[in-house]
This record gives sequence, structure tokens and C-alpha cells, in this order.
Amino acid sequence: MGIADRFPALERNEDGIATVLSILKQRFGERASVSPSLLEQHGHTTTFIPNMPPDCVVFPESTEEVSEIVSTCADYGVPVIPFGAGTSLEGHVNAAAGGVCLDMTGMNAVLAVHPEDLDCQVQAGVTRIQLNEYLRDTGLFFPIDPGADASLGGMAATRASGTNAVRYGTMRDNVINLTAVMADGRIIRTGRRAKKSSAGYDLTRLLIGSEGTLGVLTELTLKLHGIPEAISGGVCPFPSIDAACQATIAAIQCGIPVARIELLDPLQVKACNAYSKLDLPEQPMLFLEFHGSDASVAEQSDLFGAIADDLGGGPFTWATQAEDRTRLWKARHDAYWASVALRPGARGVSTDVCVPISRLAECVSETAADLDELGLLAPIVGHVGDGNFHVLLLLDMESTEELAAADTFLNRLAERAIGMEGTCTGEHGIGQGKIKYMEQEHGLALGPMALIKQALDPLNILNPGKILPIQIGA
Amino acid sequence: MGIADRFPALERNEDGIATVLSILKQRFGERASVSPSLLEQHGHTTTFIPNMPPDCVVFPESTEEVSEIVSTCADYGVPVIPFGAGTSLEGHVNAAAGGVCLDMTGMNAVLAVHPEDLDCQVQAGVTRIQLNEYLRDTGLFFPIDPGADASLGGMAATRASGTNAVRYGTMRDNVINLTAVMADGRIIRTGRRAKKSSAGYDLTRLLIGSEGTLGVLTELTLKLHGIPEAISGGVCPFPSIDAACQATIAAIQCGIPVARIELLDPLQVKACNAYSKLDLPEQPMLFLEFHGSDASVAEQSDLFGAIADDLGGGPFTWATQAEDRTRLWKARHDAYWASVALRPGARGVSTDVCVPISRLAECVSETAADLDELGLLAPIVGHVGDGNFHVLLLLDMESTEELAAADTFLNRLAERAIGMEGTCTGEHGIGQGKIKYMEQEHGLALGPMALIKQALDPLNILNPGKILPIQIGA
Repeated sequence: MGIADRFPALERNEDGIATVLSILKQRFGERASVSPSLLEQHGHTTTFIPNMPPDCVVFPESTEEVSEIVSTCADYGVPVIPFGAGTSLEGHVNAAAGGVCLDMTGMNAVLAVHPEDLDCQVQAGVTRIQLNEYLRDTGLFFPIDPGADASLGGMAATRASGTNAVRYGTMRDNVINLTAVMADGRIIRTGRRAKKSSAGYDLTRLLIGSEGTLGVLTELTLKLHGIPEAISGGVCPFPSIDAACQATIAAIQCGIPVARIELLDPLQVKACNAYSKLDLPEQPMLFLEFHGSDASVAEQSDLFGAIADDLGGGPFTWATQAEDRTRLWKARHDAYWASVALRPGARGVSTDVCVPISRLAECVSETAADLDELGLLAPIVGHVGDGNFHVLLLLDMESTEELAAADTFLNRLAERAIGMEGTCTGEHGIGQGKIKYMEQEHGLALGPMALIKQALDPLNILNPGKILPIQIGA
Repeated sequence: MGIADRFPALERNEDGIATVLSILKQRFGERASVSPSLLEQHGHTTTFIPNMPPDCVVFPESTEEVSEIVSTCADYGVPVIPFGAGTSLEGHVNAAAGGVCLDMTGMNAVLAVHPEDLDCQVQAGVTRIQLNEYLRDTGLFFPIDPGADASLGGMAATRASGTNAVRYGTMRDNVINLTAVMADGRIIRTGRRAKKSSAGYDLTRLLIGSEGTLGVLTELTLKLHGIPEAISGGVCPFPSIDAACQATIAAIQCGIPVARIELLDPLQVKACNAYSKLDLPEQPMLFLEFHGSDASVAEQSDLFGAIADDLGGGPFTWATQAEDRTRLWKARHDAYWASVALRPGARGVSTDVCVPISRLAECVSETAADLDELGLLAPIVGHVGDGNFHVLLLLDMESTEELAAADTFLNRLAERAIGMEGTCTGEHGIGQGKIKYMEQEHGLALGPMALIKQALDPLNILNPGKILPIQIGA
């Protein structure tokens, strides 16, 4: 079976699409584009899922405009696909049934910062780096860091997290409320600005991770955190993946409030050494970062050093200088490019799973063995404090054998994680790529998910063909 | 208008109820009781909302039995009301349309503890104190502490929190997944045991805070935390509510990871002095607790002392001895009884709101002034790190004037909180008592809530007459 057969286009509502296009063109002029290259850029290209471009890309500038566009699409039963920075990995923005892509990049205003409340309000197109640059003089920062400079709306939509989720949580934990446009064009705000509430259903959390299938996110109120007085970090090699995972478990268990704890397998270390000019031993390696007061980061580092030592790891090399630390974390952030450079011409296909931390060593080791068996080249990096790890398959997209092996590998990986009481994705989301694992992961809970989708989007116009294996609506 | 008129009984399905009672009686024998005193105990009595007893109380012993009971009720369109420890405060367990109360106290097994993963699995009837006693030898604890020894299922259903939510979060943050019986009897599990996931809609968070209206919670997987190496705490008087709130804001802003920070107003301090034999100055007072290593709690205490001093507060009296600390926190936990003792014969009616912390001082001060104006006696205590506070009205339930004044006060308080971008309840929930504020708080977002309720419980059998002002179904 070819790849495209796995991701078939859905039935198109040609008449509706034609009508909506002419209405949007008239209403938005240049801000409603049908340029083929622009359309293709707004289909999905960061996986091996084929590109499925929308029929039109509109650039709204306000929640009201989004509401107007969604209402028009609802009137004619035409799909609406929200688009942030285009950094999602599982085909989230592919227009499987065509329709209108809402490019949110024009909605990039920071609307308010409330330092006393440690929160801020932003439009959904603001990116995380943009926000942190805006906050620079306030002593505050927004911690969620998925690597890419994703839009905050997109990060909420995929329930993103990243390297320091172990300390600061994921998007689930750091969004106070959302403004969203629902399938009928209705604008709602999902909560107040209080830090907690017991007043009614948690629509905030329902929309977070809904990947544009239940509503279009237009504004977010986010939690902020004080920039720590002191940051320290370092690297620590281990004799085995297992020892590195045991050290992680011990660190979490004894309550070290580690801010980042990242595992790199030997292949990833090799790639980073070559790409980022480091000279780390090519062993399983933890990159660590601690946040706190001067005294507390020193205490955390000492404690971790002792744990590593007990497990045969070390030496824990503590990067006291900011430049050294920046160099290390830049290398970690560049892991993708470092990996791709291992095999020039290859396409990097990234996947992630997450398991209870007690099963992590076993899961990573079996996964590494599977890569060997299938003859695939794929470095492994992990947000191991959360039991979450990534595999970056380096594939020759022209080789049907390699693609078939990759498919086998991805299926086995998802099933292995689910079999260990884990999930087929810790932070990338379902999109199109992982729909096939939803039933195995959720069983009967898929029923209520489908009922909710049907209730909130009866025409199935909001990002159709994503998340749910059950197709709903017209 | 009398109180009972505000909470009218809903239409009863007499035939269905009679049929279901005879089926349950035959199936469960002694475990399906219609004893009038037991029925009344399972109606709601901890507010001034009238008691509305169910027609039958069943004591299930497994998720499968719950499923069987709910299926039977679904067959005949009869209400099902889950009941934990009966400590809710807003009429959550009143049987407004009669029906079957599911008393979960028999489902009180701790099913598994996974120390490496810092999680455990419990049946919904396990109480928080029972769980912490069970965990005593593991070095782990479950931090959420709403005061009462509530059941964990009930705590999840009302999205409970309490004194140390400022450090450890609320039930929203500490439940990994749920097992629930849906309105059609279907048993679902809302997630896996991995610490995070991006796989589909967050049914866990949707059920948390749904107060039994979307599903019956039967099992929970909970996050656990390591018992801190060191705990310290103390009390600190302030010249004004405003200064105490400013100190709280400053402590949070400079990143002190305070575990508890509780405000007592002068009336509450007076009550605690009398009831718990303390001799605290009758001023606005903060009770504080710090968790961490020896060095870190000392650092936190010093830092807080300096903040208090800057704001004209203090002296910060640090209770180094465990006995002194226990005595203080026992006094804080006994605040309810201490308050009630201020006015023998009075009924204590507890309410809570939550606002952004920047508005807290203003909200508490206006509330205190309103109590004065209305001539009501009511101590105020607050989980001020979260912007959440409680008012305990001490009422003569025979005085229609007092009840009218209390009604005016409660309306003004909810409106004041909502007007300050806050919520009409931070942790008590909506139940019957706060339904009337839902529209003001949520506006158009009530629409999606009602659609979700209708989709998941089309017959409106799950705890009808709670949360939503819009009545749905048959």
C-alpha cells in the first residue's frame, strides 16, 4: 500500500467551496489568497504524509473576522483549518477535504501583561519566542518550549510541551482561558482570569489538544513564571540507557525540581558532536538544567551528581558559565538538524511516545533494538523526566523498502508504548498520522469523544479528518 | 421569596422510579435501601438549600455494578446521583427529581501504588485521609486537602483544591486518568498512565468538575508527591488586609514556592484564639508553610520575613517545632468549628469565590464592608496564594431578615468576583446553589456546555438540576 492510500482525501463539497471562495474574495480581497504556492505551503509537509493544500488561505486580523469566516463556511458546509506557524508534525493542517485555511499570523498582538497575576493575554498567532522577547524587561517568561518557534494558538491546539515540561507542565497546565470561535461562528471565552475555578465544565482543557476540530482558538490567557534568580546545568554520561533512566527516576523521586532533563542516545550524541562542535563521549547522555536561587541550584546539582555517581554515571560536568550552557542547549535544540546531517539527502520524520517513567528504559531499549532489526537510522532524544521520547527517522523517501520499514517501526512503537500503559503521542498530537492508534489507546472512550465532536461541530467543518477514526457529519 | 422556591423540585418520573426501585431491590437486596433516615442523610444538608432526598440509596462494590445500576436507570429514565462523603457545600447531592443515590463508600480500595511513577490508582470512595494513611510508609503523599475528609471521587467531581493548591495544584492537575460510567452504562477510561499525552480530547479534565452530570467516577489514577525533607511554617500579622495580600503577591512573584499561604481576617483570628487556645494578635494574619530541603525552607522563611517587614507586617513567628506547627494548622483546619462557636445555635453557611490575585485585597475589603453594612457575622479565610477566599456566614435560620440579607450578600459577592475577572466559585463548585451565576460568568460559553451535556446524557439522568441553568432532555 502506498503512503497516499493511507491518507486518502475526503469527499469535497465543490459547490460550497466555490461559493465560499467567491464570498471571501469579495470580502477580504488580497487577504484571501488562492496562489498555488501559498496553498501548498499551507498544506502539510513536515512528515511523510502527502501534502493536501486548502483551496484558499485567509489572513484574519481579529476574533470577529474569524467568526465571520467560520460563519460563512458553516453556511455552505465548507471546512475551516486553522494554521499557526506550520510546525506540527502529524499532518494537522492538511486540508483533507479542501476548504479554507485560516492563517493566524496576522493575529500576533500581545494584548496585556499582568505582572502581579503572573499572566498575559495574547492573540493566537503570537509565537513563543515573540512572547518571551516581549516579556524580556518584566522579569517573567513563558516556559513551554517545544523546540520550534510555534504559535501559541497552535501549541494549545496540540497540547504541546517540550524540554521543561517536567518542571513547568504542558500547555494543559499553562493556559488560564481561551477565546474561541465555535463551529457556528459563536465567540466564547472558556473561563475567567482567576487562577482556579470550579464553575462548570472545563472548556479550556477540552479545546486544548483538540487540534482545531472543536473550535478555532483566537486568544489565550497564559500563565507566566518569574525568571529564576539562578540557572545552572550540565551534562552527564551514563554506561547505559537504563542507568540514565534510573538516574532520572531517582532525581524526580527525591524531589529535585529539575527544570530540564533530556536523554540523548549515543547516535544523537555523535550527531551533536559533529554538528555543534562538541566533544562529548558517545554514550547515553543526560543534559540537565536547574532553576532556583544560587543556593538551591547548587544543592540540586550536588544531589544529582551523587545520584549519577551511585548509578555508575558521570562525571556530571557542570556548566557554570552562561555561554557554555547556551552552547549545550543550542546543541540540544539543534538536535534535529544535527541528525539530518548524519545522512545528507534524507528526510527527517519525527515521532514521539510517552510511557510511565518506570517503563521508560525498557521502552527506549526495545525501540533501539527494533531500529537495529529494521535497519533504520534514527537518533533518540527524550524528555525523560516525563517518560516522553522522540525518534527521528532519517529516510530515503524514494525507497519503498525504507518507507515500509518505517511504517512497521512506527506501528510497533505506538503499540509498544500503549502496551506499557503509555500513549501513542506525548506532545506531537494525532493529526492524520496517528488516527489509527486512537482505538487501541482509548477503546470505548472514543464514543464520548465522537459525541462531543458531533455536538459541537455537527457539519464536521472544523479541521475534518483529524484525531477521530470515526467520520462524522454530512 | 422563600428559600425552597429558589430551589424547586424538578418533575419526577414516578413510574420509572417505581420500576427501577423494584429491580434494584431484587438485584441488590440490603444494598439497596429506602430507609427514610438514610435517604435524608443522602440529600443535601450542609447549606441553606432544603434537603431533597433520593428515593433509594444503593451501595455498589465495583465499576461493573455501577454500570449495571446506571444502565437500569437509563432504561427507565431515572436520575442517578453519585455520593462520596457528603461534604459538598452547594447542594450537589440533592435529588431534585428523586431517583437513585449511588453511595460510593463501599468502593474504598487502594488498587495500586507505583512509587517509581509517583502515582496510585484508587476506587472513587477512598478518602484523602485514608489514602495518606495507606501511603504513610512509602515516603509519598497526596497533597490536595480541602479540609473535610472528602472522597477522592467527590473531590474530582467538584474540582476541589484547598490549602496547598498554591504549590501542588488542584484536582485538575493531580488526576492522571479516570474510570467512569457514562449515561448509557458504558465504562470508559479517560487516559493512560503516562504523565502527559496529546492523543485526543481531554475527557479527564472534562469529567473533573462535572459534578456527576456527565459520568459517574468509579476509579482514579492520581499523582503523588514525595514527602518533603523539611517542612517549616509560621504566622505573620499584618496591619491591614491589603498589606497581607501585597505580601502574598510579592512572595509568589519572587518565586518562593510556598506550600500554603492562608489569610485569616481579625474575626477569624479571634474565633481561632478562643476555640484553639491561641493568643494571636487580632489582626489580619497569614499562616504559612514551606516545603523543601532544610536549606531551602530556611531560605524561603527568611525571604518571606523580609517581604513582610517591608510591608509593615510581622514579626513572622517561625514554628520550628512540629508540635507548634501542628497546633497552628489544626487551628486553621478547625476554623469552621471555631467560627460556628462565635454564635452558638447559628448555622454556618460557607461560600467561596476566586479572583486574580491583583484584585484580592480589593475584593476582600469590599466584602468585609458589605458584611458590616448588612449586619452579618461572617469570618473570612482565604487560600490567598490562589486569589481564593471563603466567607462563613453565621446565620439564624429562623430569621427571614437574616436569610434575605445573606441572599443579598451572596449575590453581591459572586457578582463582585465575576466583575473583577474572577469566578463565583474557586473550589466549592456550582451544585444547585450557584447555578444562577453561571450565565453571568460564562455568557455564550454556556451553549457548548449544554450541547456537551445533551450529547453525553441525552435523557438528563446524571445528577439533573446541577451546574447548568438550561434544563435538557425529557
